This record gives sequence, structure tokens and C-alpha cells, in this order.
Amino acid sequence: MRVFGIDPGSARTGYGCLDTDGGRHRLVTCGALTAPTGAALPARLEFIHHHLLDLIRSSRADCVAIENLFHARNVRSALVLGHARGVAVLAAVQAGLPVIEYTPAEIKVAVVGYGRAEKPQIQHMVKLLLGLDTAPSPHDAADALAVAICHAHTGSAPAPARRGPRAPRSWRDVKLPVAARRH
Amino acid sequence: MRVFGIDPGSARTGYGCLDTDGGRHRLVTCGALTAPTGAALPARLEFIHHHLLDLIRSSRADCVAIENLFHARNVRSALVLGHARGVAVLAAVQAGLPVIEYTPAEIKVAVVGYGRAEKPQIQHMVKLLLGLDTAPSPHDAADALAVAICHAHTGSAPAPARRGPRAPRSWRDVKLPVAARRH
Repeated sequence: MRVFGIDPGSARTGYGCLDTDGGRHRLVTCGALTAPTGAALPARLEFIHHHLLDLIRSSRADCVAIENLFHARNVRSALVLGHARGVAVLAAVQAGLPVIEYTPAEIKVAVVGYGRAEKPQIQHMVKLLLGLDTAPSPHDAADALAVAICHAHTGSAPAPARRGPRAPRSWRDVKLPVAARRH
Repeated sequence: MRVFGIDPGSARTGYGCLDTDGGRHRLVTCGALTAPTGAALPARLEFIHHHLLDLIRSSRADCVAIENLFHARNVRSALVLGHARGVAVLAAVQAGLPVIEYTPAEIKVAVVGYGRAEKPQIQHMVKLLLGLDTAPSPHDAADALAVAICHAHTGSAPAPARRGPRAPRSWRDVKLPVAARRH
């Protein structure tokens, strides 16, 4: 199974792809998308979406794992982060892949064995679990690989409900359920 | 000038399109996109993005006006709302249109003349300003038209910086600025 992990952010979005048999994992690729400095949010969103869709499609992954966020510093940063995560999730769905979400605690338990692990511990374990010489850099890439490892550990059993034909496909063929007034 | 207004939401996204000469406005179309009940967030996001992109493109609008959110009930609802607004902004950028954002207070001042106006006042003024027999329904459609009216009142003078060739176009041709490791 090939898993594509995403660590979304409005300034930098980490990604990491790995092959796994459930127990052993092999790094395929990882990195981070950095939106051009000073670009407005709409332009940053198109940048993230465009390149992420490209990367997911070319990765030939079987599924996309992404962190499920519940916390942010404040409402303002939650809104901005929500924008970035929204277009990342959209890219995964548009690539035709099932999207599986994990909470930060689930990811930490799966990778480090402790739900309150710190970032350096996660980076260290990602390095060990993938048999790398150095920890993946930047840290957004390591975080994305941690989500992918979490799915490899906890979600590697076939999940027909998540991997079947995705619902939105058929919506394109049905009548648009809008309450519309045209003049 | 034709303005396409959006009132984003994860359950229901209002839209409203109008023609304006800066002083008088004419309704083109309005309505609301309601995601299928019980659908997961990834599927809802694809639904909103797909239909909104269709509507914006077929509207032949000159620009998209959207509410700039700073507040939400809590961090959790800000995250969800951010997802929906993110894919709405993305649809506008992908349709090749400039995206102009207005704060709720700016919209209320432009439509009602009072920054703390209530929803019924906005719906009433939208009805009057567009010369309609009844207030636009559902209220998400009226809210979307209010954003469009706000832009018609405050942003109808040419704004070359916002209407010029959008930055992301050229990014497709430049080298991907990622820190990537391929194995």
C-alpha cells in the first residue's frame, strides 16, 4: 500500500509518501510546498492546491492521510489554517483517493507510542521507522510522513467503505440541489 | 460591471450575481448550494467547489466579492468554516477572476448604512436596492448579494492592481519551489 501524508499550513504544506506492508515502510518522497512570500491568501491557496494535486496524482498513492485539526492559537489562525487544509483535502478528493483523518494524539501514539510526544521525538521516530540517515527536513515533511506512518500502522487493513467509489462522483450527474432564482 | 458575491458555509453556501453601474443594480441570479445531508467534509468541499466553479464561470462575472471572516463561535467552527471559504476562494481564483474581500462591518455599512445592522435589515435593503418584490431566499443568497452590492458601492472604480493578470498563472510555468527528497 502506498500512503500520501499531508501536514497542511497556509505558509508551508508538508507532504510525504511511503510504501508500507503494515509493518515495514519505505520512503518514496517527501518535501514541503512553500507559497511565494508576500502572496495574498487566494494566490497561496491556488498554489497549494495546484501543486498538491500534481504531487498526489504523480505519487500513484492508494490513499491520503491528513491530520484532523481541532485546535489553533485563536479563531483567526484557525480560519486561515482551515482555508489551507480545505484546499488540501479538496486536492486529495479530486485525485480520486480516499481521505483518512487522524487526530494529533492518534498520530503521536502511532509513531512514538505517547499521545503528548514533542516534535523532535516525532522527527526522530520517523527517521528510525523509515531507516533514514537523517531526519526528514523540513519538519513539515517529517510531520506529513508521521501521518502516513500512522495510517500504515492503524489503517492498513482493507477498508472497503473508505476505498469504494467516492460519493461526489455521482453528484456530478444528478440535478443540482440549489434553491435558485434566475431573472 | 457584473459582480458575483459569495457567502461561504460548510453546510450551505450562498451566491448572488448582479449587474451594476455603481448606482443602480440588477439581479442576474442568486441561490444557495446545499451539500447532501450527512456527507463527510471532504465530499462537501468537493461539492461546493465543483458547483461554485461552474456557477462563477457561467455567470461571466468580472470579479468575485466574498465576506472576510474574522470571527466564529469557536476555534472548531472557525476551522470548518475556513475549509468551506478556502475552496470558495479557490474556485474564484481558478475561474480567473479577482477576489475582493469585505469585512462584515463594511458590508453592513455599504448596504444598510450601519455597521451593526441585523440580518432582517440587510435582507430588506437587498430587496429594495435590487427592486425585488420579495427578499431573496434563502437568507444565504441575500447575504451573498449584500457582499456583491458592497463591492458595487465601494469598489466599482477601476482597480488595476486587483484586476491585472493574477500572480498564480505564472507560477505554473516556474520551477516548483519545494524542498524535496526523492528516493
